[in-house]
Order: sequence, then structure tokens, then C-alpha cells
Amino acid sequence: MTVTIPQGFRSAGIAVGLKSTGKPDLALVVNDGPAPASAVVFTSNRAQANPILWSRRVVAQGTARAVVLNSGGANCFTGDFGYDTSRLTAEAVAAAIGEPDAERILVCSTGLIGTGDQAFRDKIVGNVPALAAALSAEDVTAPAAILTTDSVEKTAVRRGDGWTIGAMAKGAGMLAPGLATMLVVITTDAVLSDAALDRALRGATGASFDRLDSDGCMSTNDQVTLLASGASGVAPEEAAFAAALAEVCDELAGKLQADAEGASHDIDIEVRGARSTAEAVEVGRSVARNNLFKAAIFGNDPNWGRVLAAIGTTSAEFDPYAVDVAFNGVRLCHAGAPDRPVEECDLAPRRTHVEIDLFAGEATATIRTNDLTHDYVHENSAYSS
Amino acid sequence: MTVTIPQGFRSAGIAVGLKSTGKPDLALVVNDGPAPASAVVFTSNRAQANPILWSRRVVAQGTARAVVLNSGGANCFTGDFGYDTSRLTAEAVAAAIGEPDAERILVCSTGLIGTGDQAFRDKIVGNVPALAAALSAEDVTAPAAILTTDSVEKTAVRRGDGWTIGAMAKGAGMLAPGLATMLVVITTDAVLSDAALDRALRGATGASFDRLDSDGCMSTNDQVTLLASGASGVAPEEAAFAAALAEVCDELAGKLQADAEGASHDIDIEVRGARSTAEAVEVGRSVARNNLFKAAIFGNDPNWGRVLAAIGTTSAEFDPYAVDVAFNGVRLCHAGAPDRPVEECDLAPRRTHVEIDLFAGEATATIRTNDLTHDYVHENSAYSS
Repeated sequence: MTVTIPQGFRSAGIAVGLKSTGKPDLALVVNDGPAPASAVVFTSNRAQANPILWSRRVVAQGTARAVVLNSGGANCFTGDFGYDTSRLTAEAVAAAIGEPDAERILVCSTGLIGTGDQAFRDKIVGNVPALAAALSAEDVTAPAAILTTDSVEKTAVRRGDGWTIGAMAKGAGMLAPGLATMLVVITTDAVLSDAALDRALRGATGASFDRLDSDGCMSTNDQVTLLASGASGVAPEEAAFAAALAEVCDELAGKLQADAEGASHDIDIEVRGARSTAEAVEVGRSVARNNLFKAAIFGNDPNWGRVLAAIGTTSAEFDPYAVDVAFNGVRLCHAGAPDRPVEECDLAPRRTHVEIDLFAGEATATIRTNDLTHDYVHENSAYSS
Repeated sequence: MTVTIPQGFRSAGIAVGLKSTGKPDLALVVNDGPAPASAVVFTSNRAQANPILWSRRVVAQGTARAVVLNSGGANCFTGDFGYDTSRLTAEAVAAAIGEPDAERILVCSTGLIGTGDQAFRDKIVGNVPALAAALSAEDVTAPAAILTTDSVEKTAVRRGDGWTIGAMAKGAGMLAPGLATMLVVITTDAVLSDAALDRALRGATGASFDRLDSDGCMSTNDQVTLLASGASGVAPEEAAFAAALAEVCDELAGKLQADAEGASHDIDIEVRGARSTAEAVEVGRSVARNNLFKAAIFGNDPNWGRVLAAIGTTSAEFDPYAVDVAFNGVRLCHAGAPDRPVEECDLAPRRTHVEIDLFAGEATATIRTNDLTHDYVHENSAYSS
């Protein structure tokens, strides 16, 4: 279990009945130190779930000690009652692990918006003792307990010079119910300050999760938590740690994209020659969010015209008549006109690579997305989430 | 035929073989004056089709005299050859109607991006004489000749005090092939200057077509053309004309929304209590472009949580926990928490009304959109466009 591979961590995952399937739905990751530090990145959606509101309070107070996560309900737009549920959950966990300060316990929830009644609260709070009793440095159950419609667990590990990073994640843009909430917990036994962790985490999430744009919808519950125990005794160069963390996040982002339920293509939109990274991201996102483009990929149609029409809606610097577009290595548009015959291009494979060259600078960025399929429509219309 | 109802106009629509179906695909509207004036609004997409580039030149020169429109091919990203096709088309029309200046002839095209070869040019230019010969002040064929996947013609008429406005339109966001290019031609026999027409047109399009956001994709070919003949001899108050024009555009926008191919719901997202109109539009658009919201409507699911998650991504002024959301008259969310039971809400009817109250000001705006359906995915993936 990868969040416990770094020294100084214990985790657990149990079933408390939030999911009607009876599958595991409550997880806990505890940082035993000896030099705890933490950093958290939250959803930028202003409509924030109650657990997010509680966790922001934790971050404002200082270093977090643990994170408790439930699936089977988002506890979002559940009013003051829902906020109290998050608080009570944190208080129960703090008591169970011998932590005097409940405001050092982060809380995450994922599932249906609006779920968060008395029964929801009772199942979580009432089972915290059992959860804490299951904590182990060899635990393998936590990654499953945070899943909603994911079909596989997502984990990653990177080893540095005497220190290690471990991680688990759930969610993906195309995952239908629950607005595809993305929850990530990353642990490390490196010795680093809160501030250094924060810098590394923001850099890593900005280049990975922020560029995973499967259906353009931003969840109310997203949270990426990074906990450092210092148990390795090794204080790495910040740059070395940041690079390893970026690799972990990038690997997880790729796994989330690949597990996007209902998708038949994993599409990497690589933008080159942009005036700035921000413009490369803007251009990539305009394509990633374009329904006509995504539907065309579903139909195995390398429709470069829709790519141009999409990027033409941005304010990025480029000449629309000087752009190159390639699909899976075949350049179909050169200098704003048709190039190779579309018959040379095979879009049957799941992995799809679209390259856009703007010839306006040196900056690049890749946006990950998926195609727009019948399964996506079915998943998101047939079930209330 | 509504563009010829105002005095001083002739039109025609014929089949020249651009459409494989043999249906009419070339139209012409001519302003016979005696006091011609014009105004044009173009797509804001920076990837502009060749006819748009030509038409911008016409507008830069002064008052337009006529507009020729073809369906069956967008003539976009067809290089210098495609630009010359637009120019040659204008020259042929000018010669055929006895207009000395080809740069007074606007050109519009709609259809597949990349279409615009020699055969395309020959069919258009070679048939201009026949098109001109078919011109009539009682013509009823032009509205059909501009259609692509529309299932019905869209026309509108408004009568003022001694003057009239007529209009025809094609396209709708959900119309699959061709990126749903929207082409509109509006005629009036009122006496007005180019500048007055321009002010009225920008105001009318801003409040109507700009707020029709069926699938968030902006065409490379959109153009709204307003031609005034002055043949009524009546010079209306600018405000009276602007109001009537706004009604015409609003009616056409509603008709485009209702004909969105593949849609099963016409959704009006009414935002109230915004700090400014721009913010009301931003909030409405965030919902209109949210795939999870649109898929939920397809499933007749009044998923207010997705509405809140959508508006939470905007920077508009409001408290996410103080917003009201109603579906078809039933308030499901009040002050950021569940209100009436969802069972009270019936989303089976095609016409859908979502009301969002931000309680942050007095501004309002309504964005029109459609749901995300299997038919949309099929139409946009199964056919190359």
C-alpha cells in the first residue's frame, strides 16, 4: 500500500455502509512523524463542500497530522449540519489516535452532492474507533475505500536518495457520478517544511492534475493532501523532491485519465510553440473542452477543422493560418491548409496524441482529456449524482 | 418570404449541386434601395473562413448592396484559392445585378471546413447568372437554400409604424455537421444610416444570438447581415427600430434553439440578482456549457447540485451558500441547501426553465441551450464535418 511505503505512516480502509454495495468507504492516513509537515491544495470551485471548509480551517491552523476520507457521499450543500459532521468526524479521529487537537485532522468526502444526513454522520463518526483500530504501517485497504466509480485503484511510488514518496488517488473527469471528485493523498518520509511542501505541491499539481480536463467540470470536493513524516532523517534538495513529486502527480493524472469511465480514447493534447505556458494551457484546454472535437475522436475521425475552430476562440498569440495540427503522428494541417490525407491517420487505438504547433514562441503544455461517448451521456443522465 | 416582405428587396435560392442531396444551396438577397445602408456582425472566432475575410473587406469599404450565401461547404482553411473563390463569387454577382463595385457584395458560406476546391468554385460562380435571373420581390426559396442540417426554415417579421423588418436564419448550436454555423440575413425598408443600423444590430445580437449557447462551440463562419433599403420613406426613432430588431433576433434565436438537431430539451437558464449583466451572462454560460448539467437534463434529472458546481467556477459576485435554484418553477435549492422535494419537479416537457437567483444585485440574463444527448454524440461522431 503505497501511502505507507514511506516510513512514519499508518493507514486503514473499512466498510461502514455508506455505499449500498457494502464496499469499503472510509479511509484514514496518519502521520506519525517525527517531524510532521503538510501541504494541501483544494478545489478552486467556489461552491465548496463542507469537508473542504473544515480542511481549510485545519490548514489555517498549521500542520495537519492526519486525513480521514469517505466515499459514498460528498457532504456538500448540506448546511451547518454537514459542517458539524465534518467537525465531529475530525474530533472522533483525533480522540481515537491520541491527537489533542481536532483541528489537525483533515477531512475529505466524495459522492453525491446533497448527501450528508444523520445516518451519514452516524455511520462515519460511529465507526471511527474501528477505523483507528485497523491502522497499520502495512495496510493495503485505504486506496479502495476512497473509490467511487473508479474501476481500479491508483497508486504511485518514487524513491529518492534515502527518502520515498507514496501516493493514492481516486476520480477522473469522465467518471460520471459525483462530479468526478478527485482525491489524492501523498506521503513522504523526507524532512521538509510546510512551506517547501507547499511550493512543491503547487508546482506538481499545476502541471498535472490541473491539466487533466476530461469533461471540463470542476468538482466541489477536490483535495490533494501531502503529508511528510521526516522519518527518513534525510532532508533532500527542494528541487530533487519537487521533481519526484511532479513525477508522482503526473503518473497519477495519467492513471486517472486512463480510468475515465465511459471513455474510449485517452487524448493527450500537446501544444507547442506558444508564447507562454499559460497560453499553451489555454489553447490545449479550448480543444479539451470542445464537444465537437471530443465526439469526433469517439468516431475515430481526425477532424482537424474542429481543432482550429476551438483554438480560434482563445486569446492566445498565434496566426490561425500558420498553425500545424497532427493526429497520432500524421500532420493533417500545415500553415492553415490541409496537409497529409486523412486516410493516413489511424485513430482506432485508445491512446490519442494531438499535436498543435503555434509557431509563436517556445512554451509547451499538454492537456489530458477523453472523448465524448454514448457511455458518458448514459452514465451522467441515467443516474442521479 | 420574409426577407422580401420589406420594400426594396429581391431574393432567390437555387440548387447548384453543392449538396449531394440536390437540395437548394445557393441564395442571394439584393438591396434595391433607394437609400441603402448596412451593418454586419461576424463570428468572434479568430479562425475565420474565407468568406468572412472577404465580407470584412466589404464592410471596411462602406455600405453593402447584396449578400450571396451558399450551403454545402464552408470554404474555411482553403487557403488563397478559397479566398479567391469568395472574391470571384462577389464579382460574378456584382456583374449579374449591374453593380459596378464587387466590394459591395457580401459572401457567406456554411458547411464542412476544408471544402472549397475547383468544383466548389465552379458550381457557385458558374451558376450566379441563373441565381440572378431567379431574383424576385416575391421569392420564397432563399430561406431553404441556406440550410444545412436544420429541419425547418427559420424566419421572422416585425412591423413598425410604416416600416417593416424581415429575416431568415439557419443553424443552431446542436446542429452537428459544420460546427453549427449561424447565418442570418435581416432586411428592412426603414430609412437609417449605417451607424444606426450597426448600433441596433450589435445590441440585438448581443442579447440574443450571443446568448444562444447550445454546445459552447463557436463557428468559423457565423455572420449576421442587416440591410436597409429606405424604400418605405420612413425614418423611425432609433430606439423603436432597435427594439423591433431585438425582438426579431430573439425570436430567431429561440427558433434556432428549438431546432437544435439531436436535442430533447430546450433549456432557458435565467439568471437573476446578478451584480451586472456581464456576470449574469457568465453564470448562465457556465451552466449552459456544463456537460454534467446538460446530460442530467437529458435524463430528466433536476440535478441542482451540478448547477451550483457549475456557477462555482465563475468569478461572478455571489455567496454560493445563498443561491436559489429552481427547475420548471419548483425551487429545489434555497440558501445553499435542499428545498422542495425533487419529486415535485417534472422535466419531461421539452421546454425547460432553470432559474438561478444570485441575490447580489439587480441584473439579469437568460442563456439558451439544449441538453446533451445520445443523438448529439452520434451526429457529431458518425459523420465527418
